[in-house]
Amino acid sequence: LKYHNLASSLITLTTDFGLTDTYVGVMKGVILGIAPRAQIVDLTHAIAPQNILEASARLEAAIDFFPSHTLHLVVVDPGVGSRRDAVVVPTDKGVFIAPDNGVLTLPLRRCLARTAVRLGDQASPYLRQPVSATFHGRDIFAPIAAHLAAGVLPESLGDRCDPRTLVLLSVPTPYEERSEEGRPVLHVPILYCDHFGNLITALTPAEWSAWHARLGIDAEEAAAKAVIQAGSGRWKGIRRTFRDVEADAPLAYWGSAGRLEIAIREGNAAQTLALTSRAAIYLTF
Amino acid sequence: LKYHNLASSLITLTTDFGLTDTYVGVMKGVILGIAPRAQIVDLTHAIAPQNILEASARLEAAIDFFPSHTLHLVVVDPGVGSRRDAVVVPTDKGVFIAPDNGVLTLPLRRCLARTAVRLGDQASPYLRQPVSATFHGRDIFAPIAAHLAAGVLPESLGDRCDPRTLVLLSVPTPYEERSEEGRPVLHVPILYCDHFGNLITALTPAEWSAWHARLGIDAEEAAAKAVIQAGSGRWKGIRRTFRDVEADAPLAYWGSAGRLEIAIREGNAAQTLALTSRAAIYLTF
Amino acid sequence: LKYHNLASSLITLTTDFGLTDTYVGVMKGVILGIAPRAQIVDLTHAIAPQNILEASARLEAAIDFFPSHTLHLVVVDPGVGSRRDAVVVPTDKGVFIAPDNGVLTLPLRRCLARTAVRLGDQASPYLRQPVSATFHGRDIFAPIAAHLAAGVLPESLGDRCDPRTLVLLSVPTPYEERSEEGRPVLHVPILYCDHFGNLITALTPAEWSAWHARLGIDAEEAAAKAVIQAGSGRWKGIRRTFRDVEADAPLAYWGSAGRLEIAIREGNAAQTLALTSRAAIYLTF
Repeated sequence: LKYHNLASSLITLTTDFGLTDTYVGVMKGVILGIAPRAQIVDLTHAIAPQNILEASARLEAAIDFFPSHTLHLVVVDPGVGSRRDAVVVPTDKGVFIAPDNGVLTLPLRRCLARTAVRLGDQASPYLRQPVSATFHGRDIFAPIAAHLAAGVLPESLGDRCDPRTLVLLSVPTPYEERSEEGRPVLHVPILYCDHFGNLITALTPAEWSAWHARLGIDAEEAAAKAVIQAGSGRWKGIRRTFRDVEADAPLAYWGSAGRLEIAIREGNAAQTLALTSRAAIYLTF
Repeated sequence: LKYHNLASSLITLTTDFGLTDTYVGVMKGVILGIAPRAQIVDLTHAIAPQNILEASARLEAAIDFFPSHTLHLVVVDPGVGSRRDAVVVPTDKGVFIAPDNGVLTLPLRRCLARTAVRLGDQASPYLRQPVSATFHGRDIFAPIAAHLAAGVLPESLGDRCDPRTLVLLSVPTPYEERSEEGRPVLHVPILYCDHFGNLITALTPAEWSAWHARLGIDAEEAAAKAVIQAGSGRWKGIRRTFRDVEADAPLAYWGSAGRLEIAIREGNAAQTLALTSRAAIYLTF
Repeated sequence: LKYHNLASSLITLTTDFGLTDTYVGVMKGVILGIAPRAQIVDLTHAIAPQNILEASARLEAAIDFFPSHTLHLVVVDPGVGSRRDAVVVPTDKGVFIAPDNGVLTLPLRRCLARTAVRLGDQASPYLRQPVSATFHGRDIFAPIAAHLAAGVLPESLGDRCDPRTLVLLSVPTPYEERSEEGRPVLHVPILYCDHFGNLITALTPAEWSAWHARLGIDAEEAAAKAVIQAGSGRWKGIRRTFRDVEADAPLAYWGSAGRLEIAIREGNAAQTLALTSRAAIYLTF
């Protein structure tokens, strides 16, 4: 099956395959062999091996910046070769193609999804045969994305299901605890760390507003008086951008991923503050 | 020379240039300046510097997943600036453009190639002039690939030759040896190591079948009873996929590259077993 | 604003964002959401964080290899969120879109630029709103490049200015000094180091010719008799290509970037000679 007169379609790839091997290139070969005019964008191939949560958080932060007809293909798949399902989920912010292992948990929180499709026997003619036991990105996910780009309807690939029946990840969430002196402290897990050493936390502006409002503190005062404890660093205030602090000083700011981030101006916060993606930071007043 | 009304064509790139420099981007600029609608796919730019064998094995494993009209451009070229030839080899599985240094040895074993063309003076108008002494990827290979994408015939670029006259690599091959107790042991060289630490060996299913058949062992028994010695690891059985063993356990399986691979489930086999791409593994019964 | 019937346009990206995060992918999503048929080429995303000089030198070396209608988008932007301007500079070798922080200093030396445009309030409808304080690549530069690709005129984005009013970098330049014995020595700064460990210096052929001519030495003699002191290495002669020296020997040659380069044949000069991008080499006779 190959589609020649195809309007160009946009497909993003998110994997833990890295770029040193040919895995990603081979997936693109499969896609372009089916849908020759697809536009393929690498979202990232540097997800930590088999880290479903990181993939979920990174994809969530990216989808708002792609057209709503985009196909988002995610292959972070520790269960490859086992009986986990593959799913297609059409939403108002793009169509997701992924293993049903929880990786869509965070993106789907921000989308309207009325239905999902679990790939079934109906999908067989659209797969690359024989399907290998170790590389479903190439044999299942890439050809399915390409056929969807070419206009195949999700419903023709398997049985519909309620999106609420998909596997859900347990996502680290901010919660309130008490300091030794009894003051309320917001415990905020770190979700992942970027290439600059900036730490992306789980805290959203909505969660932050709800918390400081409950303590009777308004937005401006909360930003000015928040005390941030992040690894070996401790400082006051949430800032707007890097330039609001001196070089080498740490800062907290609402990052481009829509969550609170920790950085060192012109430095590497993960290294300097000795923090990793399994740690947490603490906010108090 | 520039072609405007060009059907989009597919060109893959395989180099040892890495992605930190602009070398790959510049090659793409040259290609798109000639063939503006070419689709370019990075197969890999992380070949170990000047490792012709690795490039050959990785390309061999990838070509089956690209359309047969694909142009495969390979620039792993320790002899740049010397008198080695540049060749164009049309086959039933795509057209190869590469230095004549042996890098096509493995891909051509899987293709039907009736002719090859050594670039000659006729190619001059299609090169980027002046041709530098150090970057033939930019000045020779990229523009030739782009002109081929645009419909220039290989024959117009130089003299035809028999593909069997191309330089051949000496490729490590499995062979039988005897253990101290006199039992037959299959010595299997490792070809390369991937980003996950999985080790891709030289052994193909055909070679494996021939060997165990000669010992009077059928396929099922051979898979079940094979004893694999790989670095510091020793275990029994060839498996289908990662899920067939416990986490952190080593396994041997027929990988997506069409060869026997060694991995650690949810781990890094190269590190854990202390094996590199110059080593070998051993199979016996 | 979205343009459907767009001739495909070529946009290059040069950033310090790396490829492990989704920043580059997100910029591409923004571009393709506006200009769906744009061709996007990654020039490099591995500029050392916030190293404006390196970005400037790498871009300068690349522009000659792209069509003159290319849009070159540069986001190396230590001043993100502060009041530095964003500029669009149409030239005979492509259109540059960048922060006005000096990053265009070297490319503009090789181009004819009659005018530049500083983005002003007129650009607002073309930006991604709300514009974040930390990711202008996504919210300002990517959408501006896409709209330019779609045919929006630079003049409609802000006020024209003289390109000579743009911020200029102080670029390290070769200069003559005297040895202890009073002989003239050419002090040549290193600009950057590539993936192979080759060192790209500031010296151009024109500067070299002017210097040896002033000393009364012709080109051939100068190449043969030049003594190069580079870190722990000292040798004689400028060569044409790697093959002109033995394996593991150092060499100086006119590199593909149009400047003198230092390499070790089949080795890593930066490591072996203990040189970095802040050092210099010395030429004498």
